[in-house]
Amino acid sequence: MRNLRLWLKYNGTAYHGWQIQDNADTVQGQLESAIEKIFCEKISVNGCSRTDAGVHANEFCCNFRTENPMPCATVVRALNAKLPLDIVVLKCEEVPFEFHARFDTKSKEYIYKIWNSELRNPFLLDTVFQYKYKLDETKLNKAAKDFIGTYDFGAFCASGSSVQDTVRTVFDASVSREGDMVVFRVSGDGFLYNMVRIMVGTLIYINEGKIKEDDIKNIILSLDRNKAGKTVSPEGLYLNKVNY
Amino acid sequence: MRNLRLWLKYNGTAYHGWQIQDNADTVQGQLESAIEKIFCEKISVNGCSRTDAGVHANEFCCNFRTENPMPCATVVRALNAKLPLDIVVLKCEEVPFEFHARFDTKSKEYIYKIWNSELRNPFLLDTVFQYKYKLDETKLNKAAKDFIGTYDFGAFCASGSSVQDTVRTVFDASVSREGDMVVFRVSGDGFLYNMVRIMVGTLIYINEGKIKEDDIKNIILSLDRNKAGKTVSPEGLYLNKVNY
Repeated sequence: MRNLRLWLKYNGTAYHGWQIQDNADTVQGQLESAIEKIFCEKISVNGCSRTDAGVHANEFCCNFRTENPMPCATVVRALNAKLPLDIVVLKCEEVPFEFHARFDTKSKEYIYKIWNSELRNPFLLDTVFQYKYKLDETKLNKAAKDFIGTYDFGAFCASGSSVQDTVRTVFDASVSREGDMVVFRVSGDGFLYNMVRIMVGTLIYINEGKIKEDDIKNIILSLDRNKAGKTVSPEGLYLNKVNY
Repeated sequence: MRNLRLWLKYNGTAYHGWQIQDNADTVQGQLESAIEKIFCEKISVNGCSRTDAGVHANEFCCNFRTENPMPCATVVRALNAKLPLDIVVLKCEEVPFEFHARFDTKSKEYIYKIWNSELRNPFLLDTVFQYKYKLDETKLNKAAKDFIGTYDFGAFCASGSSVQDTVRTVFDASVSREGDMVVFRVSGDGFLYNMVRIMVGTLIYINEGKIKEDDIKNIILSLDRNKAGKTVSPEGLYLNKVNY
């Protein structure tokens, strides 16, 4: 039995996230359907994380097991010929049988792209979040450093989540600007439901003076979702790197 | 009578080019319809050039005359509220009555974006031309310099064109790479129908060895469209700058 690891990139605009669902188009659904066409067998794929509807991936990792001896380079070409154009397989590699794309993750990096201009960018309509008022990236970068550390991030978790253990370690967090594009970048050992989008919403509240710039630690310690900012929309969010 | 100059940016994917046509959606059609809604009068707009179906503009200039006293900043906001999201007005300014966006052009710059990878980029599906085989940007940049000068560019004009005078001056031409993106950049006093796309097709033939790298001058002098390369597809082409 071979264990194949795939690295994907996808534009999530058209999908209801990664995870397969009835009556909804998902990235996992498209991938499993393409695999079934090529290998002529029904195979279930393990994804490294569940991305939400409209969220993108610059790098997404998954694995599946098969007896099929097709060479990895052929798997890449065959899948890319069957997949919709907004999903691409970057690489396929054979990994040890025990490898699991979700359980073996060491760290992940997300980025959140903010188009910081009064004028929309017609080339980036579904792939950035537009925010019209000037963001102070120096102030926000300084504030973002307070996300770094091992904490119970319960205040940064969507209220509907059923996760029991809300302790996570954030390795790094930063805000930078290139022209009109402001990017929030955060890496950690794992992320709660909507965690990155609530972090960005909190930074925006800091920019607007609704939250004080040195208040992030207090919000974390409060464990109170209501003290953090709003959940920003999904279109600016990208799973950017997955490390094993 | 005021003469208003608008600077636009648009993603041309959904449009049959700039110029207004019956039974086809065009950028000019969308703009004139938005102007009519705001100013409650039918106004004809002069565009700086005709872009083809699927061609984009990072900067496109046009002008129109009106008695309406609406301040320029309000014109920008009002038009952006009425226009489809893939067209944006960057700026509006009052110019002398005689100014004409097409006739007063001093130079234009086009860029052509080539995604040079075997793997498509799901975020750039309609905004780059994908070319799978490795491009030698150093060789192509050197070859592109032979486009510079004042010549009869008849060999680089689509055969259906009705233009009489095919003499144009190319001020600069270059090929550069950033990662997997290769960009052809060319500026001149004017361009013939499909001229930039035939230039790119010729560079690709040079890369493939179908045309010799020092043969561009000979092709120009031949005035023979059949000696140049193919017309590459429109989705990589952008009107990038217009100077007056």
